[in-house]
Amino acid sequence: MDNYPQTELNVEDAASFLKIPVQQMKELIERKVLVPNWNEYQHLFRFERKSIRIDIGSVLVQKDDGFNLILGFPKIKRAMLLGPAIKFNFSDIKKIAVEEKMNGYNVRVILLDGKLIALTRKGYVCPYSSEKVNDLLDHSFFVENPQLVVYGEMVGPDNPYVPKGIYGIESLELFVFDIRQKDTGVPLPLYERRRLAEKYGFRQVRLFGEFSIQEAPSMIMNIIQEIGRKGHEGVVIKDPNMVLQPIKYTASQSNCSDLQHALKIYNESGRDFIFSRIVREGFQSVEWDENEEDFRKRCLRLGESILRPMKESIVHVREGGRVAEEFTIRVKDRATISKFEEYMRRLGMDIVFSEPKTVGDEYLVHMKKVSKSTSDKTLAMWEGQLWS
Amino acid sequence: MDNYPQTELNVEDAASFLKIPVQQMKELIERKVLVPNWNEYQHLFRFERKSIRIDIGSVLVQKDDGFNLILGFPKIKRAMLLGPAIKFNFSDIKKIAVEEKMNGYNVRVILLDGKLIALTRKGYVCPYSSEKVNDLLDHSFFVENPQLVVYGEMVGPDNPYVPKGIYGIESLELFVFDIRQKDTGVPLPLYERRRLAEKYGFRQVRLFGEFSIQEAPSMIMNIIQEIGRKGHEGVVIKDPNMVLQPIKYTASQSNCSDLQHALKIYNESGRDFIFSRIVREGFQSVEWDENEEDFRKRCLRLGESILRPMKESIVHVREGGRVAEEFTIRVKDRATISKFEEYMRRLGMDIVFSEPKTVGDEYLVHMKKVSKSTSDKTLAMWEGQLWS
Repeated sequence: MDNYPQTELNVEDAASFLKIPVQQMKELIERKVLVPNWNEYQHLFRFERKSIRIDIGSVLVQKDDGFNLILGFPKIKRAMLLGPAIKFNFSDIKKIAVEEKMNGYNVRVILLDGKLIALTRKGYVCPYSSEKVNDLLDHSFFVENPQLVVYGEMVGPDNPYVPKGIYGIESLELFVFDIRQKDTGVPLPLYERRRLAEKYGFRQVRLFGEFSIQEAPSMIMNIIQEIGRKGHEGVVIKDPNMVLQPIKYTASQSNCSDLQHALKIYNESGRDFIFSRIVREGFQSVEWDENEEDFRKRCLRLGESILRPMKESIVHVREGGRVAEEFTIRVKDRATISKFEEYMRRLGMDIVFSEPKTVGDEYLVHMKKVSKSTSDKTLAMWEGQLWS
Repeated sequence: MDNYPQTELNVEDAASFLKIPVQQMKELIERKVLVPNWNEYQHLFRFERKSIRIDIGSVLVQKDDGFNLILGFPKIKRAMLLGPAIKFNFSDIKKIAVEEKMNGYNVRVILLDGKLIALTRKGYVCPYSSEKVNDLLDHSFFVENPQLVVYGEMVGPDNPYVPKGIYGIESLELFVFDIRQKDTGVPLPLYERRRLAEKYGFRQVRLFGEFSIQEAPSMIMNIIQEIGRKGHEGVVIKDPNMVLQPIKYTASQSNCSDLQHALKIYNESGRDFIFSRIVREGFQSVEWDENEEDFRKRCLRLGESILRPMKESIVHVREGGRVAEEFTIRVKDRATISKFEEYMRRLGMDIVFSEPKTVGDEYLVHMKKVSKSTSDKTLAMWEGQLWS
C-alpha cells in the first residue's frame, strides 16, 4: 500500500489560497489541525480540529494547478419548540420551505482525477461510498459544474454506518439536500438546487412545500406526525434563498429509534446522546398539548425504547453471546472490499468481515462490530461484580 | 462572624498522628487536600480531595490534648444483578444480614466541646443537623463511648437536602446504620452495634433479617418489592461481622423517584445520574424475569418518571414561573436559622429563606432554591432559541 505518490503540501501556495500568513499555515500542519489523507488521496488534507474560520471536516485539495477547499457540513441547529423557533429565527422572511431530513450518513461528492469521490462528514474519502456515488450520480454534472459540490445523504440497508430499511430502498441511494460552491461554501438557493439536481437525474430529499411563518408550525406538526408514523426521521426548515440558517426538527419515533440503538450498546453510548433524545420528547409533548392518553403512549414508547434493547443485550450476554452491531455492504468491484477493510482499520474500528457472497453482478459482505465495552460490562455483572 | 478563635494546624503533631512525614503534611495543606472549617469549627479539618489513604470527607479534629480522625462514609458499591453479586461477594460467609437503605442524607455525629455536632458526607459541620442531633440523641452515649462515631441517615420532611414524606416522620429523625471507631474507622459488628444503639434509645434502620447465601436473592427480591410498594428506597446487604464490604440494591420505584427529581431540573442534573438509574431498571427487569405485562408497566413507569416532571417544568416556565426546589427546616433555636443561611451561602447555594413562622415551640422556615440553568434554558426555548 506504500506505492502511492507521497505528496507534500505546498505551504506557501496553500497559505496564499487560504489567505493566511505562511507561519500560521505551518502551525496548522504542526498542530495537526490539517492532516493528509491516505493512499491515492495524500493530496487531500482534512481539517481535523476547529481553527481559523474553517469548520472541522473541510477538505483542502491540492491540484497541479492550485487548490480547492471543500467546506464541511454546516451544523444545523435544532428547534425544541417549533412555533417559537420558527417565529424567532425566520422573522425576516415571509415563507419557509420544508424538506425531509433523512436517516443515513452525509457525504460530499466531487470529481477528482476523473472519478467521483465521497467525502465523509469528517473529511475522509470513504472507499465504499465513493464506489457507490460513481454508479449513482451522472458524472456530467461535475464536468459541467466544476465549481459545485454535491451534499447528500446516503440512505438504505447496505450501509456500513446507519443501516435503515425504512425508506423502501433496495441497497443504497444518495439523496441530495444541498449543492454548494467550492472554496466559499455558498449554497445554491433551494429551487435552483432542486432544478439542477433534477436536470441531472439526481435523487433528492423530499420537499414538503413552502409555508408562511404563521401556518408553518401547525403544518410542520402534521408533517412530523406523518413522518413519525412511517418511522422516518424529521425535517429541515429552510430559507428558500438559503441566506438564513436552517433548523432541524425530528419525530418522536426517530428520537426513540435513536434511543433503541443507543441502549442496545448502553455502555458505549454517550450519556449526552441519551439525554438529548429524552429532552426532545419533553418539549414536543408540551408544545403539542397532548391529552393524558397520548402522553402515556409517549411515556410507554420512551420507556420501551430504553429498556427493551438493553434487556435484549443483557439476556444475550447471559446466554453466552457478545453484543454486536451488524452491517452489510454491497459492491461491484471486489477491490473495494479490501479498501474498505483497510479504511475501517485505519479509523481504529474493530470489525469482522464475512467472506463476500456473489449476488447478481455484485458482492455482498456482512460486517460485525462487537461492542466490547457493553459486552464486557454486562458479563462482569453476570459474574457478580459490582457496578461501582 | 470573625470573633471566633483562629486555629492553626499543628503540622508536626498532625503528621505524627497520621503517621506521615511532616513534608507530606505540609503539602496536604498547601494543595488544599486538607481544609479548615469555619467559625467555631476552625479546629476541624476536612479532607476535600482524595490523597494518601484517607477518603474524601474524613475530618481531622485538633484538640488541646491531641487529634482525632473521623473517617468518611465508605462508598457502598451497588449490585446490578442481586443473585450473582451475592454469590460472588459473600462466598466466604454463610449468612448475610439485610438492613434498610433509607432515603435521606448522611451524617456522622460526635461530641465536641460539650455539644453534639453533625458532620455531612463532605465533612462540613451542618448547623441545622447539629441542632437536630442534640435533641435526637442521648448525649451519654458519647460520654460513655468517647471513641465511637455514630453514622446515620437524617430522614423526614423538614430536610434541607432530601425532603421525603415517605416514612411517616413528622419532622426529621436520625436512623443509625453504622457505629465506627474514631481514628481507624473500624465498624462495630452488626448485632453489637444494634444492641448498643438500642441501649441508648437511638432509632435504627430496619433489620429485615439474616439469610443464607442461597436463599438471600429471592428473599431480598421480596423485600425490595415490598419496599418499592411503600415508596421506600432499598437495602444494604451486610456481612454481620462487618468484615466484607456491604452491597446496596434499590427498588425500581426509588430509581424512578430519583429520575423524577432529576428531570424536573433537567438542565442541572448530571447525565450520569440519569443514565445510572436507567441501567438499573434494565438489569432488574432481566433478573426478575418479568412477563410482558409487568415489563410494560416498568417501561411506562420509567417513561412517566422522565417525562412528567420535565413537562411540568416546561409548562411552569411558559406560564412565567421559575423552576425551583422547595425545602423546609424546623428549629428550636432561632440562631440556627441565620447560621444555616450563612452555611448555605458559604457553600455557594443560592437559596431564598422565608420569614420564620412559629409552630409550637419551634420555628418553621421555607427555603426556595431556584434551578437557574433549567429555568433559563427552558425560557430560551420558549423565546425561540435553538438547542445547539
